[in-house]
Amino acid sequence: MTDTALIGVDWGTTNLRVLRMAQDGSVLDTRFDTRGAGALARADFATVLEDVCADWLDEGSPVLVCGMAGARARWIEAPYVPCPADTGLLARLAVRAPGRRDVRIVPGVCLTATGLGDVMRGEETLALGLTGPGLDATVIAPGTHSKWISVQAGSICGFRTFMTGELFAAIRTATILGRDMGTAGHCDAAFDAGVDRALSDPALTAALFSVRVQVLADQLGPDEAADYLSGLLIGAEVMAAARTGAPAMLVGDAGLCARYDRAMMLAGHARPDRVDAEKAVALGLWRLWEAMT
Amino acid sequence: MTDTALIGVDWGTTNLRVLRMAQDGSVLDTRFDTRGAGALARADFATVLEDVCADWLDEGSPVLVCGMAGARARWIEAPYVPCPADTGLLARLAVRAPGRRDVRIVPGVCLTATGLGDVMRGEETLALGLTGPGLDATVIAPGTHSKWISVQAGSICGFRTFMTGELFAAIRTATILGRDMGTAGHCDAAFDAGVDRALSDPALTAALFSVRVQVLADQLGPDEAADYLSGLLIGAEVMAAARTGAPAMLVGDAGLCARYDRAMMLAGHARPDRVDAEKAVALGLWRLWEAMT
Repeated sequence: MTDTALIGVDWGTTNLRVLRMAQDGSVLDTRFDTRGAGALARADFATVLEDVCADWLDEGSPVLVCGMAGARARWIEAPYVPCPADTGLLARLAVRAPGRRDVRIVPGVCLTATGLGDVMRGEETLALGLTGPGLDATVIAPGTHSKWISVQAGSICGFRTFMTGELFAAIRTATILGRDMGTAGHCDAAFDAGVDRALSDPALTAALFSVRVQVLADQLGPDEAADYLSGLLIGAEVMAAARTGAPAMLVGDAGLCARYDRAMMLAGHARPDRVDAEKAVALGLWRLWEAMT
Repeated sequence: MTDTALIGVDWGTTNLRVLRMAQDGSVLDTRFDTRGAGALARADFATVLEDVCADWLDEGSPVLVCGMAGARARWIEAPYVPCPADTGLLARLAVRAPGRRDVRIVPGVCLTATGLGDVMRGEETLALGLTGPGLDATVIAPGTHSKWISVQAGSICGFRTFMTGELFAAIRTATILGRDMGTAGHCDAAFDAGVDRALSDPALTAALFSVRVQVLADQLGPDEAADYLSGLLIGAEVMAAARTGAPAMLVGDAGLCARYDRAMMLAGHARPDRVDAEKAVALGLWRLWEAMT
């Protein structure tokens, strides 16, 4: 295993993924663990990392971490860097973690120097991995907090966060709409109807009540109600997100990406490219590492 | 107590209020109980009513009930009446409850004959009590499911429901925004900032994430975050609700009405009149009763 050049870590809120990377940036091996940054105290991070990959670390390779490990009150804070942010700037502002290992943490990105405006941690690495030097793209990373990231000439020049996934879960868990609701992903027609409603009605809090009304009118069954709600929320996101001429890249869970794909087509967007998140993060970490050395 | 002409009941999801009304429609006495329709089975309604006011009922006065007692699977279903709906039509379509007492249930109102479109139960009685024959008004009843009801010439011609209150509670309970959040009602400046954001940014799911960003940037304390979130949601409702030339009447909890008042002024609406919900429901029940006899 002496061909390891870098240990890359994508440390999210709920899990982490560790990548053993070769001299050419290719991924030799990966490990996964559920000890996400959201549940760890400062002193836990180094211990977890040793647990997961002491054998790799003992080779002496440097470690580059992106994601929530750099949030305030986590491993060590790597303050947000304001846009525009490119690979060189993020590499320069990476923060060294305490300890005997060479561990560096990629900063998150904020929208504006005053007041932050919007924030992300982890998605900047993914976006830079996807776009590369000199390229333009809109990177769309759907999920709990969906990100639409605008990259121009290889630099993150703006982004916007939508609480789509978290709101979907909260509405299911804690409102009358969730009562007797089934699971989404089965009824394309109901999903499309939700998207159409969102595209034609900017009042989301009123549109949400239409889930209830259609259940009362026996127009939506339990699974259909879930798909319609999903369509409402994803449709609202797609409608509000900025359109640019740059090609769109959709990255993340396949089922979720398929829904965004549908919603974007219904909204008249060009079909986005689908790209692999793990590969993108690996490439982003590698580019940042190259810029550091 | 032989001067009782009508027992009026406003039976909501979480509680009920019973009114003993005189020959001139004035309220002689009221009683309150927490056995709302949401937790009752069909057979419970008559029992609860006897518990609360058997002494009044034994005088032989008729009973008129508005609210959730007429919902499907509650006391007896009083199907929704489509708009336009006036006092005469609702009186004619009231449904007699089973049992030896003369108990009638006011139907709810839906927006359209096909597919319902939107629904309400109870607010129609309140709106008709507020406006009276021949009058135009927009009746605004903020709460869990806020209603904006358009009345023209004494007839309910349209309305819209916003899930503002329920969404506020769900976001507090079940999302990251609720973590360490204080209570709303203390910080007018934060509330106004939320309203302003909602008025200038139609993307609610993105605007919601700005609560998180401003907490991270130390721009919002715990109570301020609650007020800002309240401003975002109420602002989105006020922005989306239809404006007509008719005078607006704001009815409900005093603290909540004060927030809607602020938001409406910020949005450039005229200041709405504040009206008393209990009086409005009593007057609505009385007008419906008069139309039945």
